Amino acid sequence: MTPRLQAGPDQVAAAAGRVMARCDELARVSSAPGRIERIYLSPEHARVNRLAAEWMRELGMRTWQDAAGNQVGRLEASDPDAPALLIGSHLDTVTDAGRYDGIAGVLMGLEVVRLLRTPVDEDRWRSPFPFALEVVAFSDEEGARFGKALLGSSAVAGLWDEDWWTLTDAEGTTVREAFLDFGLDPARLSEAARRPVDLVGYLEAHIEQGPELDRRGESLAVVSSIASARRFQIVVEGEARHAGGTPYDARRDALLGASEAALAVEAICRAEHHIIGTVGQLEAFPGAVNIVPGEVRMSLDLRGEFDVDRDRVWRAIAREFDAVMGRRGLRWTARDVHSAPAVFCAPLLQDVLREGIVSTRDAGARAGGAALPSGGASTTGAPTTLFSPAGHDGMAIGAVTGVGMLFLRNPDGISHHPDEAVSEGDVALGIRALAEAVLHRAAEPE
Amino acid sequence: MTPRLQAGPDQVAAAAGRVMARCDELARVSSAPGRIERIYLSPEHARVNRLAAEWMRELGMRTWQDAAGNQVGRLEASDPDAPALLIGSHLDTVTDAGRYDGIAGVLMGLEVVRLLRTPVDEDRWRSPFPFALEVVAFSDEEGARFGKALLGSSAVAGLWDEDWWTLTDAEGTTVREAFLDFGLDPARLSEAARRPVDLVGYLEAHIEQGPELDRRGESLAVVSSIASARRFQIVVEGEARHAGGTPYDARRDALLGASEAALAVEAICRAEHHIIGTVGQLEAFPGAVNIVPGEVRMSLDLRGEFDVDRDRVWRAIAREFDAVMGRRGLRWTARDVHSAPAVFCAPLLQDVLREGIVSTRDAGARAGGAALPSGGASTTGAPTTLFSPAGHDGMAIGAVTGVGMLFLRNPDGISHHPDEAVSEGDVALGIRALAEAVLHRAAEPE
Repeated sequence: MTPRLQAGPDQVAAAAGRVMARCDELARVSSAPGRIERIYLSPEHARVNRLAAEWMRELGMRTWQDAAGNQVGRLEASDPDAPALLIGSHLDTVTDAGRYDGIAGVLMGLEVVRLLRTPVDEDRWRSPFPFALEVVAFSDEEGARFGKALLGSSAVAGLWDEDWWTLTDAEGTTVREAFLDFGLDPARLSEAARRPVDLVGYLEAHIEQGPELDRRGESLAVVSSIASARRFQIVVEGEARHAGGTPYDARRDALLGASEAALAVEAICRAEHHIIGTVGQLEAFPGAVNIVPGEVRMSLDLRGEFDVDRDRVWRAIAREFDAVMGRRGLRWTARDVHSAPAVFCAPLLQDVLREGIVSTRDAGARAGGAALPSGGASTTGAPTTLFSPAGHDGMAIGAVTGVGMLFLRNPDGISHHPDEAVSEGDVALGIRALAEAVLHRAAEPE
Repeated sequence: MTPRLQAGPDQVAAAAGRVMARCDELARVSSAPGRIERIYLSPEHARVNRLAAEWMRELGMRTWQDAAGNQVGRLEASDPDAPALLIGSHLDTVTDAGRYDGIAGVLMGLEVVRLLRTPVDEDRWRSPFPFALEVVAFSDEEGARFGKALLGSSAVAGLWDEDWWTLTDAEGTTVREAFLDFGLDPARLSEAARRPVDLVGYLEAHIEQGPELDRRGESLAVVSSIASARRFQIVVEGEARHAGGTPYDARRDALLGASEAALAVEAICRAEHHIIGTVGQLEAFPGAVNIVPGEVRMSLDLRGEFDVDRDRVWRAIAREFDAVMGRRGLRWTARDVHSAPAVFCAPLLQDVLREGIVSTRDAGARAGGAALPSGGASTTGAPTTLFSPAGHDGMAIGAVTGVGMLFLRNPDGISHHPDEAVSEGDVALGIRALAEAVLHRAAEPE
């Protein structure tokens, strides 16, 4: 028999309203006046953890802040030793951020628990499944403070690297010092790590951070994989010369070489399918109005659905860089600063999310399409499956348990920006789909 | 009768040796350990002025530091009210500079005075001409401290702009505060200005700051004009978006537009004659590895032999920028931050410098070519005439008196760089040519 969520449209609509209101509330917890900025191990991090913990306890969950500053709430199953299904995302932000990236996923997790929990007695609740329900608010996904992303989820996945303790922020504070200032004990970091045997999986809802669903007129998608990514710091070296006296044929202008290189990245990646390359940082040195640039430092961010394609494209880019720099008498070097293999979502969790989306449509149809907004074209046919070029906590968590991800439509695909948005209707659909997916997961044989 | 320098090859060779040694000595007066940096109104500026004044007094010159910090030495003619022929250049430098740009011209001026002066009695000397000889060491030509170049020579030319008092350096110090710190009285600035009636002209020797003479195998050239220049600060605006989630057709990448723009400047200027355009500053914002650049700030330095060509090329560049930015959905603006018309050297002073070069060749031939190094191809035929794409103090001084400039071969054209060079042999030829030019000037009817 197909499991079905007992909650009615009003309850789901109220849940979505609460998520939107809490996204606004958390947006006000910021270190920068007039905009949103909330970095790892900051006073704002502590404040949003306290708020999340309060909301978790209201649902009858037991709460703790783990050894890496992640905020966790747990609703036990009948068996207190049962493994847990994690639902979550992150509460940290980039600089001048939007209010939904990560945050919406944590708050939707809380609403899923609210819709699914079963009363034990007047004041106590439990998970009705053979697994506990945990909501996790990861402490660092963006990496905005220390450059290295996924610090919070890496600790949970047992992937913490001892080298990270000495990473520094813009003020020169190390990760170790920041832990101590925040009241965390670096020596206890490993206590944040979870064992695979204690987990049944990880589900995350997240705005798409791209325009694909918006273009298709759909509300929700299942994620097939999280992009494979590599990042390079590239230095182009030429010769700094006087801008007046040096004719073009005597110049080795590092900026013109870098300009050709940036355009080559675009041309090569555009010709590919599911590969995207971005030069986000570029600066010319010495940077004087009357001196031909002798050096350029630039970044390259390369993402693809499959590692093999990403690496093939990198080789093509490197060959083109060789040609450009050779013609201009320049040298170039690339330092590989980040490499993450593609993480494929667990087939079972992809399936239950697809079933969740279909059940949500059915619920909408039963309600005459009035109580819940239409999911657009996705209301018929197989639910859309997308790969995620953006990184997510699941990239780390995938090392310790299966990952399932649900994307919510992101109008015009604007993210990492104050204009980032998601509609309340899509959040309602997402909460319902996520709750239905948990029911489907519970119906699967262990 | 053709005037002829009485000094023999040994005296000229000794003069060149002294110039080279003093360039080394002044290079040690630097605010940065291990490299050369000497900015306007700094303690190093005061120190080189004291050294120059000492060397001037050794030659029997009366010395003073003028109201703008320029160091001047004067060797009177028989008539103490006679106007002066100025010979000079500047002692300030860019950051991480070479040791000859400007400096060599001041020291060569001193040697010209040494070769030409006439004894009055055992300890006193005078100019043998109907004009006094002044050596001037300008205090600010490069503009490295306050962004605005030619502050020292502009004061001498009576071109000082009251707005300059509030220009600030990197530490936020204004020009006015820097004057007071240096011991100069801003209220007396106008005393630095010279009257046309008190001047017969300005001669300057300078390294070429380009490879033209080196390529031709020649030692010396006469300058026809100093380039017309315009500088722009350009802003390209697009939209900052998430690098993972934003497909190429949804991007408005300011950096890719700026890259095309920089390459367009090169393509358009290369197709011209005597026009050179340089993008020396370029930086992408927000400058994060995973964000599509939403803004680029860049500079454009445009120089040409004639104002009308420079402005026509700027219009062509602007049209191309419009096309590039239009295709990419970007906006761009340009702020005109500097505009200097071309300054044409005085025909009479060009002529006497040409005669000076020819006399120098004759002297070399008389000495059997042994005492002085060969001037290469220029030893026969008319002396080479070049226009100067680089700016010089003469651009300001041209407002108050005629300007004549002599270029010295600059190996490989490297300037504004520690590898900047000039040979001792070429300095010897330059000293002789300059001294011969003064004799030719004195032979001209007033």
